[in-house]
Amino acid sequence: MSLKKAFFLTLTMMSSISNAQKVHNPAQYVHPIIGTEKMGHTYPGATVPFGAVQLSPETDTLSYEINGKYNPNVYKYCAGYRYEDKTIVGFSHTHFSGTGHSDLGDFLVMPTVGKLQMNPGTAEHPETGFRSRFSHDQETAEAGYYKVKLTDHDILAELTATPRVGIHQYTFPKSDDAHIILDLMYGIYNYEDKNVWTYVRVVNDHLITGFRQTNGWARTRTVYFAMEFSKPFKSYGNKDFDGKQPYRGFWRKWNMNENFPELAGKKIRMHFDFETQDQEKIMVKMAISPVSQANALENLNTEAPEWNFAKYRNQAQEEWNRELGKIDIETNSQDDLVNFYTSMYHTFINPTVYMDTNGEYKGLDQNIHKAEGFTHYTTFSLWDTYRALHPFFNIIQPTRNNDMVKSMMAHYDQFSLKMLPVWSHYGNENWCMSGYHSVSVLADAIIKGNYTGDPEAALNACIATSEKRNYEGIGDYTDRGYIPAEKNGTSVSNTLEYAYDDWAIAQIAKKLGKTDVYNKYIKRSGNWRNVFDPSIGFMRPKLEDGSFKKDFDLQSTHGQGFIEGNSWNYSFFVPQNPKALIEAMGGNKKFSSKLDELFSMHLPDAFFADTEDITREGIIGGYVHGNEPAHHIAYLYNFAGQPWKTQKMVRHILKMQYQARPDGLGGNDDCGQMSAWYIFSSLGFYPVAPGSDEYSIGSPAVRKAVLHLENGKTFTINTVNQNDKNIYVEKADLNGKPLKNYSLKHQEIMNGGTLTFYMSAQPKK
Amino acid sequence: MSLKKAFFLTLTMMSSISNAQKVHNPAQYVHPIIGTEKMGHTYPGATVPFGAVQLSPETDTLSYEINGKYNPNVYKYCAGYRYEDKTIVGFSHTHFSGTGHSDLGDFLVMPTVGKLQMNPGTAEHPETGFRSRFSHDQETAEAGYYKVKLTDHDILAELTATPRVGIHQYTFPKSDDAHIILDLMYGIYNYEDKNVWTYVRVVNDHLITGFRQTNGWARTRTVYFAMEFSKPFKSYGNKDFDGKQPYRGFWRKWNMNENFPELAGKKIRMHFDFETQDQEKIMVKMAISPVSQANALENLNTEAPEWNFAKYRNQAQEEWNRELGKIDIETNSQDDLVNFYTSMYHTFINPTVYMDTNGEYKGLDQNIHKAEGFTHYTTFSLWDTYRALHPFFNIIQPTRNNDMVKSMMAHYDQFSLKMLPVWSHYGNENWCMSGYHSVSVLADAIIKGNYTGDPEAALNACIATSEKRNYEGIGDYTDRGYIPAEKNGTSVSNTLEYAYDDWAIAQIAKKLGKTDVYNKYIKRSGNWRNVFDPSIGFMRPKLEDGSFKKDFDLQSTHGQGFIEGNSWNYSFFVPQNPKALIEAMGGNKKFSSKLDELFSMHLPDAFFADTEDITREGIIGGYVHGNEPAHHIAYLYNFAGQPWKTQKMVRHILKMQYQARPDGLGGNDDCGQMSAWYIFSSLGFYPVAPGSDEYSIGSPAVRKAVLHLENGKTFTINTVNQNDKNIYVEKADLNGKPLKNYSLKHQEIMNGGTLTFYMSAQPKK
Repeated sequence: MSLKKAFFLTLTMMSSISNAQKVHNPAQYVHPIIGTEKMGHTYPGATVPFGAVQLSPETDTLSYEINGKYNPNVYKYCAGYRYEDKTIVGFSHTHFSGTGHSDLGDFLVMPTVGKLQMNPGTAEHPETGFRSRFSHDQETAEAGYYKVKLTDHDILAELTATPRVGIHQYTFPKSDDAHIILDLMYGIYNYEDKNVWTYVRVVNDHLITGFRQTNGWARTRTVYFAMEFSKPFKSYGNKDFDGKQPYRGFWRKWNMNENFPELAGKKIRMHFDFETQDQEKIMVKMAISPVSQANALENLNTEAPEWNFAKYRNQAQEEWNRELGKIDIETNSQDDLVNFYTSMYHTFINPTVYMDTNGEYKGLDQNIHKAEGFTHYTTFSLWDTYRALHPFFNIIQPTRNNDMVKSMMAHYDQFSLKMLPVWSHYGNENWCMSGYHSVSVLADAIIKGNYTGDPEAALNACIATSEKRNYEGIGDYTDRGYIPAEKNGTSVSNTLEYAYDDWAIAQIAKKLGKTDVYNKYIKRSGNWRNVFDPSIGFMRPKLEDGSFKKDFDLQSTHGQGFIEGNSWNYSFFVPQNPKALIEAMGGNKKFSSKLDELFSMHLPDAFFADTEDITREGIIGGYVHGNEPAHHIAYLYNFAGQPWKTQKMVRHILKMQYQARPDGLGGNDDCGQMSAWYIFSSLGFYPVAPGSDEYSIGSPAVRKAVLHLENGKTFTINTVNQNDKNIYVEKADLNGKPLKNYSLKHQEIMNGGTLTFYMSAQPKK
Repeated sequence: MSLKKAFFLTLTMMSSISNAQKVHNPAQYVHPIIGTEKMGHTYPGATVPFGAVQLSPETDTLSYEINGKYNPNVYKYCAGYRYEDKTIVGFSHTHFSGTGHSDLGDFLVMPTVGKLQMNPGTAEHPETGFRSRFSHDQETAEAGYYKVKLTDHDILAELTATPRVGIHQYTFPKSDDAHIILDLMYGIYNYEDKNVWTYVRVVNDHLITGFRQTNGWARTRTVYFAMEFSKPFKSYGNKDFDGKQPYRGFWRKWNMNENFPELAGKKIRMHFDFETQDQEKIMVKMAISPVSQANALENLNTEAPEWNFAKYRNQAQEEWNRELGKIDIETNSQDDLVNFYTSMYHTFINPTVYMDTNGEYKGLDQNIHKAEGFTHYTTFSLWDTYRALHPFFNIIQPTRNNDMVKSMMAHYDQFSLKMLPVWSHYGNENWCMSGYHSVSVLADAIIKGNYTGDPEAALNACIATSEKRNYEGIGDYTDRGYIPAEKNGTSVSNTLEYAYDDWAIAQIAKKLGKTDVYNKYIKRSGNWRNVFDPSIGFMRPKLEDGSFKKDFDLQSTHGQGFIEGNSWNYSFFVPQNPKALIEAMGGNKKFSSKLDELFSMHLPDAFFADTEDITREGIIGGYVHGNEPAHHIAYLYNFAGQPWKTQKMVRHILKMQYQARPDGLGGNDDCGQMSAWYIFSSLGFYPVAPGSDEYSIGSPAVRKAVLHLENGKTFTINTVNQNDKNIYVEKADLNGKPLKNYSLKHQEIMNGGTLTFYMSAQPKK
């Protein structure tokens, strides 16, 4: 990080507090800019907790393809904004936070002055289009608020949001020729045919409505909008960039490019024209809906009826304070405060509310449903988030997590395939990544007593999902206990993940007293053994004939049966039974040595070319924290009798992988999973096997944390002798009694109480 | 017509009756096959009166373009079926009746046996695809019922319908390899990008739902469906013909081609597989909705819950008898019976019901609306149908016509452009043809006391529509009283039609006592004078500088300022004031001679190449009956003191232009306008100027007609000495008193009573 960046980050903090004080305004420590450089894939714009609108700047308009071939640069733009870019093309209303594949970017809005430009222009020559240069010196990103000076147009752009409405405030210079561009072509991960259809109607001189339908990561997705201007536009127009328009001869009776209120096509950009006085503010409110223009309008009028930017900004920031205030912390450093609350901010972005103010949403069946008695959510990046994000929610957001499980059950009910979500957003399944980890989220919520729906129906949904023989090797897995390498490119990952998921299903069955189901799935949960090669002590692709794949590289991912993790990382993936894994690997000592080797090995450069989503900074030795499969590994020392190594590594990872800088995240934040790891680990414990009610103890990084639980109770984490050197836990007391086995029960947290860590610079061997 | 055809038509009549008898089963005289050859553009399939479903065979799958250029052959397939074709590709559920441009063709279904074919194959080699040969000998088309033997597959296909459900019954041979194809790519006037998106979900082994979204004549149109099979399919699959499928990598985890229940794309065909016993019947019910899959399912379950083909067939035919029975007739010949009831059948097809059983429909604003207190209709081919179809409805279908006007007002209210429909279907305006003839339909309904909505709102909608300065020369028309030829390719037609429409607006204003509005519009109604060139006695394009276009051809249409009619035909288009036109043309004698010349001139072959929608059979001299602008002309002799010539020409046109043969219509039936002309003229009167309450007397072709009016009264047309030679009206008595001025008032019909024509072989000069 340059000194300049560090200086900037410090400057943007609204006040300096004594570390030992209770945090009254935690939102001030949120720096949405963290993760916007390199691999974090976060966005700096404005959103409210779990809001449906994520209003954020875009710094380029890359296509998914160039001349029909995948454009590798598009990957960097998963969140639309790159910190290293010099220009902004506009502000769009929907973004994923931290993903490694992408979609969305609906309804790009850009204010300009001067000659009307209907193309964005290039980053090298922004004057060739409507885009503008900007500088980080004139940019502020806060929880719920974003501000930037668009220098080419001398316009100050400010953004805030309500759950379903993006609110823009543009301060213009004096101009006879001011414009607000609405780009309906723009999209994230855009390709030639991604825009399936767009429709716009100009209702009057300050209101337009319409929709945009895309075929992207979400295969069949329509977002409706209602867009209102605080000042009537004096004129408007559009350009349809789709050359091919056969069969519309009769529309040519009109001049449809100027002041024409009824537009439809695939590639439309609109402009709205104004005369402005110097420093005149024009506000734009853009409400979205997954259901209809009428609902978008209702969302607009329900959530943001006024023309009062400050009010909505304050409202958004109060909401962030309310949510972030569920944990008060004291830390060793200002940076730790920033990292903690920024992580917490990142965990409270996805999943997002997916229903209108009237409760309606479009389901997996493309029908309109109404969420009765719960809030319906979307954006389930489950391969990532089952690990720590949903467990974190079970502690700090139990009502929302319960509703998220209900949303997943609604997905199951509505889907003709009768499967729980794998990776779903906007009423679509996109099938990204491996496993059927919904079952882990369901199990975790049910085991922890946090699901108010019908647990039998949930179990049935888990079973049905796990029995989809045609999906990703499940048939072979069911028949043989493993997926033959010939049949599936990620045969080992899948086998390991299914085995863990099956254990999660077994936990639900046990809780419901379904012994047969329990027995069946607990047996399946041992399937990891089938891809474990005892002769080398690693997980390894197995062929149809039962022999292990000959040509095998422990450090490669692709072509070796793994996804986002090599055998070195995946070989430790038996979270459901670490003891058995340790035994298989030759006992505590050998196992610990192997972990030591993982954390200390030197990797060749070739490795990085071959591994997705991470940078060299996302790696410690051969341990890949930037991807998720290894997230529990540091805690496995606990199971091998060397808890001090867990403590050391956790503190090391916290320091190395999370830094209060734009490039401070070592990998994709993945809808908050990376951040949830940070929070758990900072607090001193981690859910190694979601679906169990136990947490494994690490080493707290906070000095103190007070968790204000929804049940009204308070769980306090205290430390004694805490500092950056005293990273080892001498002992830990729960309510004054020693904690056993480096393990904490969920109920012990939810009962309220105090967990006190006595810290030391010496490992307690 | 070949003898064979004549024989076939006679055979299909279900019984022979004495011409003098009351008709108890008028549907037996309906021959939907009439108009399916040459220019009629009717379809032979099954529909109920004004039904939303028109289930009919398609005989080819032509593309709108070939190598990016318009394919002129596609025009012939406006209704999907050509009598001269030898093969059928399947049966689709939506069709226009008689149009000269097209759209629709949703959800093509085709039963097959033998090797699965996913392409239709060619007409020359039907064995290369799923299509089949058929023969008219094994084909029956009745009102509400269609039957054909698909000889290549040895399958008997039978079709019937409820308002919103197409009902298929396929009688299979014994086969292990029977299929029902669902082609979601097929469409009428199909071009490369017409299919915007399709979506299908297989709900269970006998029910699928989904939608098809198109960008065609209707720019933004989605039809949802629910399709149910009487027998569970043993397997199913699909082929997606869209080569380009970027960005869907994760879906490749599945084999989506076989038994995969969740499909989406642009070019999908599906197959459903069965084992059949010999003569086993499999039924298919396909419900459609403009709103949602859920509504389609509700339509299915509300209208057609049973598996009883005979019941729905009987129901459809009873409904036709009920509607056709509103007029009982006696005729001179069997052919006249067939022509009359087939014409009546064709008038009762369009407009079509456009709302679900729960009243919901998608409006012009792409929002979902509910029709409260009226039936919502679509398919308004108003340039055609304002002339005689809607006037006919004001007599015989007043409730429906009132609802149609309400539907047009809903269109106005929902449309961002605030215009009444020009040519609209499925919640879309397509802007086809000239004028703003909605105002005529509104005026006719209001003047005749048949509109129960707010007439002031209706007048305001008319005014707003007539003031759209940017539409088709209205600005110039308003400022100058005519449209300069430089500005608009159809400047004369438009000027003439606007002038008539303005007269219609004036009639509403007069009725509402709005003197200012009346004065303004009655003045505009004289604008026809501005394009009348007294030096030649014809309508003629006028230039911006006020001079008439020099290079001018009375017989050309294109490039001469006209549309679907040359100056010879359009010069008589002053229906609002024939007397003034006669005066301008030099008085009764000169005017009559000019009419004589029109009806007797010889046209060069080049004329036919230049004139749309008609064949040589659609022309009498230079009078083009096959297009609409001349439809009132035969009645103009009445206004020039030579009513016997009206009588003679009307009878001549009735004979020449309407024949009980597949090729018996002289031009496009145009959603019933040609047929409505037939009915009025057969009954002995015609609405020369809709919006007036007067009908002009012609010469009845029926012997007797009894109109059973909705108000419970009966209006009887009697003739004395009626036969094919006695074509002249000696005198006409209304309720025993002589009719004056060859004119009949609307109220005189609605009061009930008897109009007696005394016929003679001698003109009464």
